[in-house]
Amino acid sequence: MLVDFVPAAQPETEAVKERRDAEQEKLAGNQLKIKEARLPVMVIFEGWNAAGKGSVLGRVIRNIDPRFFQVATMEAPPTEDEKRKPFLYRYIVEIPEAGKFKFFDTCWMREVTDGVLRGTAEKADYKSRIRDINTAERQLTDNGYLVVKFFFHITQKEQKKRLDALEKNKDTKWRAKSGDFWENEHYDECLEVYDTYLEDTSRQVAPWYIIDASDRRWAEVQVLTYLNQAIDIALQNNSYNSLILQNRFRLEPMPLLKEIPLDQEISEEDYRKELKELQGELGDLHNRLYRKKVPVIIAYEGWDAAGKGGNIKRITGALDPRGYIVHPIASPEPHEKARFYLWRFWNRLPKTGHIAIFDRTWYGRVMVERLEGFCSENDWKRAYNEINEFEKMLTDWGAVLIKFWVQIDKDTQLARFNERQNTPEKQWKITDEDWRNREKWDLYEDAVNEMLQKTSTDFAPWHVLESVDKKYARIKALKIVNDSIKKAL
Amino acid sequence: MLVDFVPAAQPETEAVKERRDAEQEKLAGNQLKIKEARLPVMVIFEGWNAAGKGSVLGRVIRNIDPRFFQVATMEAPPTEDEKRKPFLYRYIVEIPEAGKFKFFDTCWMREVTDGVLRGTAEKADYKSRIRDINTAERQLTDNGYLVVKFFFHITQKEQKKRLDALEKNKDTKWRAKSGDFWENEHYDECLEVYDTYLEDTSRQVAPWYIIDASDRRWAEVQVLTYLNQAIDIALQNNSYNSLILQNRFRLEPMPLLKEIPLDQEISEEDYRKELKELQGELGDLHNRLYRKKVPVIIAYEGWDAAGKGGNIKRITGALDPRGYIVHPIASPEPHEKARFYLWRFWNRLPKTGHIAIFDRTWYGRVMVERLEGFCSENDWKRAYNEINEFEKMLTDWGAVLIKFWVQIDKDTQLARFNERQNTPEKQWKITDEDWRNREKWDLYEDAVNEMLQKTSTDFAPWHVLESVDKKYARIKALKIVNDSIKKAL
Repeated sequence: MLVDFVPAAQPETEAVKERRDAEQEKLAGNQLKIKEARLPVMVIFEGWNAAGKGSVLGRVIRNIDPRFFQVATMEAPPTEDEKRKPFLYRYIVEIPEAGKFKFFDTCWMREVTDGVLRGTAEKADYKSRIRDINTAERQLTDNGYLVVKFFFHITQKEQKKRLDALEKNKDTKWRAKSGDFWENEHYDECLEVYDTYLEDTSRQVAPWYIIDASDRRWAEVQVLTYLNQAIDIALQNNSYNSLILQNRFRLEPMPLLKEIPLDQEISEEDYRKELKELQGELGDLHNRLYRKKVPVIIAYEGWDAAGKGGNIKRITGALDPRGYIVHPIASPEPHEKARFYLWRFWNRLPKTGHIAIFDRTWYGRVMVERLEGFCSENDWKRAYNEINEFEKMLTDWGAVLIKFWVQIDKDTQLARFNERQNTPEKQWKITDEDWRNREKWDLYEDAVNEMLQKTSTDFAPWHVLESVDKKYARIKALKIVNDSIKKAL
Repeated sequence: MLVDFVPAAQPETEAVKERRDAEQEKLAGNQLKIKEARLPVMVIFEGWNAAGKGSVLGRVIRNIDPRFFQVATMEAPPTEDEKRKPFLYRYIVEIPEAGKFKFFDTCWMREVTDGVLRGTAEKADYKSRIRDINTAERQLTDNGYLVVKFFFHITQKEQKKRLDALEKNKDTKWRAKSGDFWENEHYDECLEVYDTYLEDTSRQVAPWYIIDASDRRWAEVQVLTYLNQAIDIALQNNSYNSLILQNRFRLEPMPLLKEIPLDQEISEEDYRKELKELQGELGDLHNRLYRKKVPVIIAYEGWDAAGKGGNIKRITGALDPRGYIVHPIASPEPHEKARFYLWRFWNRLPKTGHIAIFDRTWYGRVMVERLEGFCSENDWKRAYNEINEFEKMLTDWGAVLIKFWVQIDKDTQLARFNERQNTPEKQWKITDEDWRNREKWDLYEDAVNEMLQKTSTDFAPWHVLESVDKKYARIKALKIVNDSIKKAL
């Protein structure tokens, strides 16, 4: 792509100036249209050092109301904290919310190509990052995002001229970094790496636009024109449905809920004994995984009143409070609802060596959001694959990912609801919504069965906790957690 | 993709049977819906030999009315005639028309992977074919096609079992070909080649579905399910607009029409002399390109009454009638309008060594179709890139592609219109439509300028023929044709 690209900078004529003004005005109008249509717009600026990304970005946003856009500057390498998250984390947390622009001053491209050029990335790393990036861009566009990608292109000679000029001037000298000169001296090598990346990540749903950046004012016209054009098209497609991709992952066979025997029990005595042993072991394991920097994610789903809370308590009871966090997941807040549905979970990922426990999870997409119509049919049908891809990224990163379905039968739920209702200090635990959900038990059971069948991958299988005897379920959970962590250590 | 795929054949239970019946019924309903929505559906079956593509295909079409589908069997290697066309030709000519199914029993995949496995394809060939295939699938889906791709997967052991069974039975022995056994013996090598191909051509707009073909009845359920699901989604997206891709090709600078001087002339004497010489030379060149099997495509566009017909006659006057064809391009016939707009031009490509002259061309998309609203704004805006890609495939194939814009001014047109109107034997050449088009001169001029700017690539540049003096234009055309052919020989 770059190799074939021919700069075609137009001189700054009156016509070019008029076109730039017209496109600026159009963008000012488009900011209101995307707000109204709740379209999230992610604009990525990549390119050669000193190609003028920053100054063009500054001019592009000039006419947008500051309430409607943000800029994410990603040029600095990941911090120590960010290095303890999956590669995509620091970018995903920055995605725009519905109705707003987010401009990325470099994004995931830079980190990948730098890795190749510095020789710090293996070929397999490169391939897996390209796959993750294409997956992320597809997930975002499938979920209604507009992703517009610009690569700012200048020649080796032009770059040299600019860097020399920066360095000569003592006020701008700090901006001409040694890495920039390195890039200029190894221009051909960099060109090949950039070109390969652009080819590998060019897709109809999120194509690259190469910007001839030899003239900054002309670069601005191009960026504005492509951006407005893409927004116009995205606004026309507000109810687009994507094809549902086939599952690509190895699935573990799962029983149907109704086939699961629920008569398992444990005696009080055995319970106390095993609890003590297992919690002791988990405490030790927690220290070891902290030192070995293994991240652990424990996901709880299950019927209302199935005993998730008490189960989680028996896990956390064994843990050093500085090394874990419990995330109770309720309905999304407005700022969460305004973003890609997996965003609030990306946002809550643990650092390496830490444990994050989710009390309800991203599986809400294929349960409550599906059944209550909070998302479209196309949305939840795509979600099985999107969730499997998300969990694959987590386990590829090295996470131990444990998923529990806490199972009870309908009668047990009724008994527990009634007990909550009739016990003053437990009444806070039961709401009208719980009763309403209970009426949809059969619909939920179908949805849960489909979820268990379609998302129990070999890298992130579901574990059913039979929780009519809550103590039995707690011991089983602790055993699975301990075994899973031991395998990873 | 294949490597990670785990067959999950379901036993033939009552539930599976019911699901198959339900999907068959759904497909029968969908045939009417796609007819109504004028959705063209291209279904591609690829896979291992003896995987049961044919028998499943037979079962899938059982419930479709024969008027609503066709089957294209592409398993045989290209014929000698087909080898004299571009690689994609024999597939593109088979694409379905709006509202109908076309089932491909193997398609462009097989030819590419066979080339790799037989070692007849260079690595560069492979890359260029993958690019062409992704381009073709994107152009089709951008233009409203649904493209559903199935790969029938069986294990080496299962394949061996089936081939042995075929061979043992004297009635089916003919079906177990030596190539099939070769594939079985080199299963791992084939697996890698197929897997790479599937990865390289998997796109959100035309994804692959891997079919577990270990059981034919289960394979049928899967194909029906994925097919119905894709049709449902495509029917919801009937007014989708694709992002406009950036031009990727080197463009030649072109003047605006109004900047072109039109006062060139040639004397009668010089004209006769040059015409004779140039036609003689073209006759010789025609023989040479026939022997060297170089295909030539000459495309004429220009104002009404600009002199295209007479110009073409001076070219054909020099040619052996067995070696050329003139295609006058009028409004598309119903069967042409029902297909991708470039189809009728793919369909008219010359064989190697032959000359095809188009009197009006595929550029109708960005002129008359644009101005008369015969296609959407998104359609004609995408077309510049689609046409450049099309022409790149032609020149990559080895074609000499010459494009003429025959230019006159508005007054000259008026004079010629009046002369036609007032000369009984020329009246057939002038219609009310010509007068109507003339009223839109300025709009056409804008469209032509945009076309010349955006599609004059270095591999297929536009040549302007100044045709106020028709003789001048004829001599200039002949010179350009001769020079272009000489360069290619």
